Amino acid sequence: MAASFFTPVRLVGVIGSDCPFDLTQVFADRDVDLTGLEVRPQSKTFRWSGTYHDDMDSRTTDRLELNVLAEAPPRVPDSFKDSKFVFLANTSPRLQHQLLEQVQAPAFVSADTMNCWIEGHLDDLKALLKKIDCLIINEDEARMLANEHNLIRAGEKILDTGPGIVVIKKGESGSIMYSADGDKFILPAYPAAEVKDPTGAGDSFAGGFMGHLAQSGKTDFETLKAAIAYGTVVASFTIADFSLKGLTAINRNDIDSRLVMLRKLTQF
Amino acid sequence: MAASFFTPVRLVGVIGSDCPFDLTQVFADRDVDLTGLEVRPQSKTFRWSGTYHDDMDSRTTDRLELNVLAEAPPRVPDSFKDSKFVFLANTSPRLQHQLLEQVQAPAFVSADTMNCWIEGHLDDLKALLKKIDCLIINEDEARMLANEHNLIRAGEKILDTGPGIVVIKKGESGSIMYSADGDKFILPAYPAAEVKDPTGAGDSFAGGFMGHLAQSGKTDFETLKAAIAYGTVVASFTIADFSLKGLTAINRNDIDSRLVMLRKLTQF
Repeated sequence: MAASFFTPVRLVGVIGSDCPFDLTQVFADRDVDLTGLEVRPQSKTFRWSGTYHDDMDSRTTDRLELNVLAEAPPRVPDSFKDSKFVFLANTSPRLQHQLLEQVQAPAFVSADTMNCWIEGHLDDLKALLKKIDCLIINEDEARMLANEHNLIRAGEKILDTGPGIVVIKKGESGSIMYSADGDKFILPAYPAAEVKDPTGAGDSFAGGFMGHLAQSGKTDFETLKAAIAYGTVVASFTIADFSLKGLTAINRNDIDSRLVMLRKLTQF
Repeated sequence: MAASFFTPVRLVGVIGSDCPFDLTQVFADRDVDLTGLEVRPQSKTFRWSGTYHDDMDSRTTDRLELNVLAEAPPRVPDSFKDSKFVFLANTSPRLQHQLLEQVQAPAFVSADTMNCWIEGHLDDLKALLKKIDCLIINEDEARMLANEHNLIRAGEKILDTGPGIVVIKKGESGSIMYSADGDKFILPAYPAAEVKDPTGAGDSFAGGFMGHLAQSGKTDFETLKAAIAYGTVVASFTIADFSLKGLTAINRNDIDSRLVMLRKLTQF
C-alpha cells in the first residue's frame, strides 16, 4: 500500500482462509498486482499482538503465531521474476532467501527482520545478509544483531556482515542510514502531535523507501536519502490512524506536501 | 567555555574555597571575563554526582549538594549590566530571577532548569518563564513540566506558559525547537562512535547556541536554527572526553568543519 503511491507493486504473500479482509477489495484502486497472493484454505494467517508503552515507541510482543509463515513459502509468479526492486518483508530469513532465489536479476534487494529471527535463526539471517543490498531494521534489533549498544558502531558492524546499506529505524527519533562507502544520513521522524497506532510504521517506511527507489530507478546515496525522507513521511501518515486508514485517506500530493514540510523542519 | 569560541563571555557565578580548579588558569587563554566570579571562603561548591545508564543517555542523580547555590546569589558586576545575550544556567529559579533583574535591558534571555526545581519550586519557575525568551530543557524535564508525554504537545504547552522559544534536548536523538509563531526545527545529534562522558553536554549545547546568537546579534528563526546546529556540534566535542578536555582540545575551525559535516549528514 505504501509503495503503491510511487510505483506499480507486485505483492507476494500467503494468508489463511481466516484473513478478516478481502485483499482484492483492499487493493482495488491501487496499482498492486496480487498474482503472487496465495490463500491456503487449511492454514491460519500470521498473527501478532503486542503492547505499546507510554512513549508509543517501545513495545512488547504479547502473542506471536507464525501459522502460515512456518509453512512452505509462497511461489513467486513467473510474471514477477524480472522484478528489479525487491523488498523482503519480515519473515523467517530462510523463507526470505527462498523467495529471493526465485527473482532472476534484482537490482536492489532490501530486507526487514525481527528479534525472534536474530535470537533463533541467526545463521539463516547471516546467510541472507550476504545476498541483500540493504537491511532495514529497528534500533533494538540492530543492537541485538551487532551485539553493540552504540548505534553508530552497531550500524558499521552490520555493514561488515554483508549489506552495502543499513537503515536503522528509531521510531519517534527518526532513522540513520549507513553505507559501506562511509556515507551516513540522519533524519528525524516527522513530528506528530497525535499517534493513534504505530503498528505498521516500519513497513510503511520501507514501502515508501522502496517505492521511491523503484520510481526513480536509481540507488546512489542522494537518491537513497530522498527515499528515507519519503519513507519517513509515509510512516507519519500510517501512525495517525489504525490499520490502513492513515494511508487510504491520502494521495500522492499529501505525501509531497509533507515532504516539503519535513525539509523545512530539518534543513538549516 | 563553549560560548567563548563565538563571542566574548562574561561569567557570573559563585564557588567555595573547595573548588578543585583555579578558574583563572582554566580560562586563561579565553576571552572570558571573570569579574563576576565570586569565591566564598566559608562555603562549599555545588556538587552533583550521578550514574549514566547503558545507553549513556538517561542518568540517575546519586547525590546533589546545592551548597553555595542555596545561599545568596552572586552579584552581577556593574560592567556586565549592559549585557544583551543572557544565559541563566541551571540553578534555583528564584536565584535565576534575582540575577536577571540585575541586567538592564537584555535582548535575549535563555534559561536551563532541572527536575528538582520543577518538582520543588514550580511557582518560582513559572514566574521565571514569563521573564525569559527561551527555555532550554531536556526531554524528561519537558514532559514533567508540561505534564504531557508527547513531546510535540509538551513543547507547545510550555510555549503557552511564557517563553517565545522552547528547545527540548533529546541527548543522542538531538533536539527540537518550537516557536510561539508556530515554527519548528528538528536536528539529530552529531553521530558519535565514542561517548566518554555526557556530563556537560547540555551546558555545552546552550553555550554554543547562545554564543552563535550573541556573535550574529540576531534572533530570527533562521539564526536560531543555525544556533541549534552550533550547539549540537559543540556538545559533540564535549562528550568525547571527560571534564573540559573535549573543548580545550579544539578550535573554532574544528567546530566549523564539523558543522559542514552535520549539514551533509542531515540535508536531503
